[in-house]
Amino acid sequence: MNKKNRFGWTALILMSAYFLTSMGFSVGETRESQALNLYPIGKVAKEKGRTFIVLDPKYAPGLLGLDRFSHVTVLYWFDRNDTPQKRAILQVHPRGNPKNPLRGVFATHSPVRPNLIGVSRCRIISVQENVIEVEGIDAFDGSPVIDLKN
Amino acid sequence: MNKKNRFGWTALILMSAYFLTSMGFSVGETRESQALNLYPIGKVAKEKGRTFIVLDPKYAPGLLGLDRFSHVTVLYWFDRNDTPQKRAILQVHPRGNPKNPLRGVFATHSPVRPNLIGVSRCRIISVQENVIEVEGIDAFDGSPVIDLKN
Repeated sequence: MNKKNRFGWTALILMSAYFLTSMGFSVGETRESQALNLYPIGKVAKEKGRTFIVLDPKYAPGLLGLDRFSHVTVLYWFDRNDTPQKRAILQVHPRGNPKNPLRGVFATHSPVRPNLIGVSRCRIISVQENVIEVEGIDAFDGSPVIDLKN
Repeated sequence: MNKKNRFGWTALILMSAYFLTSMGFSVGETRESQALNLYPIGKVAKEKGRTFIVLDPKYAPGLLGLDRFSHVTVLYWFDRNDTPQKRAILQVHPRGNPKNPLRGVFATHSPVRPNLIGVSRCRIISVQENVIEVEGIDAFDGSPVIDLKN
């Protein structure tokens, strides 16, 4: 077999592997197939003591009418804890205090949990285009926002 | 250029495109690279008028201490609406009534929204191993459960 031929065959095998993989025949398939597709819709922005929920502008139509309400429930992602190790933790000492007896994460608001969703009920200060100013939120600056509810 | 040479070059170009794509230089790059990994931790089960949150047994340790509380907040996935079309809807007539003026989904509890998360506060009847009986929930039987909070 000459060099060019070998190159062609190697390329063909690599490409086939890629197409099979892209069709779902990959390792980790079972877990992947159960995964739900969650996408950030915006971010938490903290600036000089003020807190904003800044949505991707394409989601601005989803805020229609929110200005008539006093509060909004913000769902965000504890992105700083997004490691397999932290997501495997199922029991914590509430409020990080070792004197508090261990409790299951599902009986707490711990930011360490299998799915890193935080829920905060916030008072609305203003709604303008794709930006909501709220009175405050537990989330860090830059946290991905995943949903808002009245 | 002979045939083999052309094959080699075509393969090289396709492979380069693949490697660039896998490095993130693709059309849908922004969206895919931002995706957050969300996995079901259990399911809603309705049976003869009773409602159960049945967790995957591996998550049972996460329920430690929940039996001392009267209520639990259940986060679940509106899986029947998990289509690109429904997830693109940003405004709805509240409660599906066309007489209600259009409102942004983020100012409602609509089960149609970009990220299909439902939040229900439920009274706890009992907690046993990996199963919680609750008084009732808006979710359909079989809905994936993604988080629980006190």
